[in-house]
Amino acid sequence: MDQWLTSLRTQTPQEGFELAIKLSRMGVKYTQPSDEARAAMRPEYAEDPAIVTAASHVVAVNFQTVAAANDWWR
Amino acid sequence: MDQWLTSLRTQTPQEGFELAIKLSRMGVKYTQPSDEARAAMRPEYAEDPAIVTAASHVVAVNFQTVAAANDWWR
Amino acid sequence: MDQWLTSLRTQTPQEGFELAIKLSRMGVKYTQPSDEARAAMRPEYAEDPAIVTAASHVVAVNFQTVAAANDWWR
Amino acid sequence: MDQWLTSLRTQTPQEGFELAIKLSRMGVKYTQPSDEARAAMRPEYAEDPAIVTAASHVVAVNFQTVAAANDWWR
Amino acid sequence: MDQWLTSLRTQTPQEGFELAIKLSRMGVKYTQPSDEARAAMRPEYAEDPAIVTAASHVVAVNFQTVAAANDWWR
Amino acid sequence: MDQWLTSLRTQTPQEGFELAIKLSRMGVKYTQPSDEARAAMRPEYAEDPAIVTAASHVVAVNFQTVAAANDWWR
Repeated sequence: MDQWLTSLRTQTPQEGFELAIKLSRMGVKYTQPSDEARAAMRPEYAEDPAIVTAASHVVAVNFQTVAAANDWWR
Repeated sequence: MDQWLTSLRTQTPQEGFELAIKLSRMGVKYTQPSDEARAAMRPEYAEDPAIVTAASHVVAVNFQTVAAANDWWR
Repeated sequence: MDQWLTSLRTQTPQEGFELAIKLSRMGVKYTQPSDEARAAMRPEYAEDPAIVTAASHVVAVNFQTVAAANDWWR
Repeated sequence: MDQWLTSLRTQTPQEGFELAIKLSRMGVKYTQPSDEARAAMRPEYAEDPAIVTAASHVVAVNFQTVAAANDWWR
Repeated sequence: MDQWLTSLRTQTPQEGFELAIKLSRMGVKYTQPSDEARAAMRPEYAEDPAIVTAASHVVAVNFQTVAAANDWWR
Repeated sequence: MDQWLTSLRTQTPQEGFELAIKLSRMGVKYTQPSDEARAAMRPEYAEDPAIVTAASHVVAVNFQTVAAANDWWR
């Protein structure tokens, strides 16, 4: 895997949230490295309310980590 | 995505809870950016007890983050 | 939404647990604001072991937040 | 609800784990207060591997809280 | 229940991970104390990818607790 | 089980994320030690959007632990 994560620090909470999105997607990508297989899952993934809620849950967990790393941008 | 999150600080715990609601919804929105697709999921989403419970779970995780950012409003 | 949360401090751990119950219910209420729709879900909600376990999970997450806010009532 | 929780402190980690079990059950009890309805769910609850795993998950979350309250019994 | 947990301290992170495995299994055992019933669930449990993933999730939560108790073996 | 985890410290956040992946897989391996049985689950595992999301969730929880162990690489 190429370098994709060099720091958990971000300028703003919103950039931190977007980093949490990226971490969540990378968790999927390490599990299913095939771009094709991930694309095939995408329609089901993004239209099933249980799955989009689960995806938002993963983002929330990663956002906890990023927020702590940034001392909550205080 | 427009700017939507500039701080995790809020005046009161209730505003913090409402920010946690917003973070949870934005986690869904980044996963499914189409307003139309999200609206189509909404009836199922809000009437299935497993999903509303899962939604409350995501809010709880985000509320942990917001509460920590505000030193629990102590 | 009316004011319903002014502090995370409670006198006792049990009151803190009951506040965690309230936070969990409010997470559901913000997701499904209709009293009628929530009442319609209630029978299924409270008799399905997977859902009552999930509900207890949400309470546990919120209780972590409330306990931290109260310095674990030490 | 009668008084059932006066402190998160325990003498040993095992007692702390058992308190986490109790907190998890009380989360279910507040959701479904009927003893009869909870008894009716019990057979399904305790023989479905997905649900016993979910129950163990709730205990793990509550054990985090109890362990922190006891400074991890260090 | 016999004594099975006297400390959260371990010599190494790997022993800590193995303690997290044990805590996860004990969470199941307190929920379903019958050795026979747990054995009956085992084949389904260990061959269903959703359940093994859920089991790994419980281990991860318990490992957070054990790692904190050991100051992350720093 | 052979020695596989001697430290939670890593040089970079990305190596920390990859350690979180490893911890997540080891949680599965301790649950289902048979290489053959894990291989049999793999196709279903990696093509079901609910499961890959759940897998990413486990990684997120383990990444919290690893990030804390490394003081968030600050």
